[in-house]
Amino acid sequence: MFRVENETQVHDMARGAVFLGGGGGGDPRIAALCLVDQLRQGKRPQVIDAASLDDDAFVLPIAGVGAPTVGDEYLLSMRTLKRLLEECQKFYGRRIDALISAEIGGFNSIMPLAAAAAADLPVVDGDGSGRAVPHIEMTTFSIYGCRATPAVVTDDAGNVAHIFAVNDRAAEEIIRATCVGMGSSVVGVFYPMTGRQAKETAVLGSLSQTLDIGRRIRTARERQANPTEDLVDYLNTPSKQRFARLLFAGRIVDVARETRDGWHWAQVLLSRAAGGEPEFSLEIQNEILVARQNGRIVATVPDIITVVDSESAEPLPAEWLTYGQRVHIVGYSADPKVRRPEAVAVIGPRAFGFDFDFVPVELPT
Amino acid sequence: MFRVENETQVHDMARGAVFLGGGGGGDPRIAALCLVDQLRQGKRPQVIDAASLDDDAFVLPIAGVGAPTVGDEYLLSMRTLKRLLEECQKFYGRRIDALISAEIGGFNSIMPLAAAAAADLPVVDGDGSGRAVPHIEMTTFSIYGCRATPAVVTDDAGNVAHIFAVNDRAAEEIIRATCVGMGSSVVGVFYPMTGRQAKETAVLGSLSQTLDIGRRIRTARERQANPTEDLVDYLNTPSKQRFARLLFAGRIVDVARETRDGWHWAQVLLSRAAGGEPEFSLEIQNEILVARQNGRIVATVPDIITVVDSESAEPLPAEWLTYGQRVHIVGYSADPKVRRPEAVAVIGPRAFGFDFDFVPVELPT
Repeated sequence: MFRVENETQVHDMARGAVFLGGGGGGDPRIAALCLVDQLRQGKRPQVIDAASLDDDAFVLPIAGVGAPTVGDEYLLSMRTLKRLLEECQKFYGRRIDALISAEIGGFNSIMPLAAAAAADLPVVDGDGSGRAVPHIEMTTFSIYGCRATPAVVTDDAGNVAHIFAVNDRAAEEIIRATCVGMGSSVVGVFYPMTGRQAKETAVLGSLSQTLDIGRRIRTARERQANPTEDLVDYLNTPSKQRFARLLFAGRIVDVARETRDGWHWAQVLLSRAAGGEPEFSLEIQNEILVARQNGRIVATVPDIITVVDSESAEPLPAEWLTYGQRVHIVGYSADPKVRRPEAVAVIGPRAFGFDFDFVPVELPT
Repeated sequence: MFRVENETQVHDMARGAVFLGGGGGGDPRIAALCLVDQLRQGKRPQVIDAASLDDDAFVLPIAGVGAPTVGDEYLLSMRTLKRLLEECQKFYGRRIDALISAEIGGFNSIMPLAAAAAADLPVVDGDGSGRAVPHIEMTTFSIYGCRATPAVVTDDAGNVAHIFAVNDRAAEEIIRATCVGMGSSVVGVFYPMTGRQAKETAVLGSLSQTLDIGRRIRTARERQANPTEDLVDYLNTPSKQRFARLLFAGRIVDVARETRDGWHWAQVLLSRAAGGEPEFSLEIQNEILVARQNGRIVATVPDIITVVDSESAEPLPAEWLTYGQRVHIVGYSADPKVRRPEAVAVIGPRAFGFDFDFVPVELPT
């Protein structure tokens, strides 16, 4: 358990969240502004361990849904978050005991803290995937037995929809479409769950992890270390039982981008040096799904593929990638809960229509 | 007031509804099968005058929304209609006193009779436009002061959404998108209203009119009259205070068609005789919006433009139009309630992005 006490923590968590988001999860800046504003009003949002939840507590996952390219332009206000929670109180007819992030990402792990601060609720240290995912059904909540609906979505204009879907795949189709009808950027509550379900189905500890990672990147800069190298070493600390690797260092030479059907789609090409041939590529649907070097797959979902600035190791949301940037591409093994076969079936490459299996980031050398 | 007592009436109403639907409003066959089945079960749905409603009665407009091309393939079941009304009972928390068609069209004016029969409710003799319209906000309900939401939509799989929109244009955007997420064919309840609102905002008498028109076409065939000519004469009966005209007689030589964004879009070209140059065109967004002869506009929304078979005067839904058909195109002035300037602003050509004003069907000669 910890409390978010100061702006440094907010920006550390935002930085770490963009890293774990694997390119997705939205722009951290707006949510960070909202959260800092809550701190200035004296709020100190509490991040609690799932273990401390009563089994019958009522826990609501909250997230922005849509194309981050749109979310960057149509800013979300605290008024909208407050309305969403008021709507939920009415709709579910239960007192809300805690919020939880539906996924980790710049917007999607900071926004719940701002909403929770405003509503004087705690936030569970965990989320539904330990990374960002482009589909609502691609969560450990769904994979391990929660249902996405009844769900509530709202936009900044004040439109509201209640969705009751026959399964979580249908929930994704309907909520995504509704989101497009609302202008491709909404906030919503999905997977209403008990405390017991949160303990069983969430990826645990992921909010603390955003704080650790963000702080590590900041302090490496202060120590004048090579921050990407330092971060990869840190992530490989044996006690963490996960694996990180620098996949590529180079320059972005092409970005093909489109906002369609409520997602941000892109393909990014990189070369080793200015003027060199492109040899590395990223395929993006909100999140980075696949990294290839000279056509060979070097990392895939559900593992985390993140682009960081080559000097500062500042993690870059996928919608910020642009021609000429000098970057490092880091691969990081996903949380064990999303690497199990039943999870890979839902979040792995084949779930996105790719004709190949999950390639764990440890394997290609 | 009348009761639907036999299959001949059902098919007459369906035929008349396709005529008034101006190409839209969906395939009458499925809804007619459902309604005939209700008659065989002994139900005799009652069509009541709006004037007989209590001012505080609770009246629900019901309609299929989506692309008729999809509605033809994914058939709607009575189970879905029953679920919709049960959902509405729960959601609105009020006893439903009557149903009303949201628009006139093959599916959309017969389906409410089937739903009402199953639920032992009366149907009001009227609707929200006296024709079919491709947008939810393009109704006299909206134009004269009712609000489209709170609305309930459902699909045949059992997915359900409650929509609360900030205005009726937003309701259209969100419900259309939700409909696409549900597979482009849903049924829903919009514009929940009081008896007083039904009296003030509906186009009245339009269900009786479908029966009259459908019967007239059938009896003209039996009398071996020229049924299109006979129908145009009948519609021009001075007491009706409306105007009808044969716009064109010829053959369909080209149909360009697409199902996109939850609508059926098409452009149809006609020539006077086989092998002749195309000289007449129809532009379709579910409904026929504009008719042109040699490029000159001869009729536009909100007036009704309908294609009928040249031998039998059987009205043809727009999604049935195909190469080689020999047809008559009939123009019929819209109900006075949808020709007022405030209505034309919402349902006229400019509302569809055309760069010209409404051309009343009486004018071009």
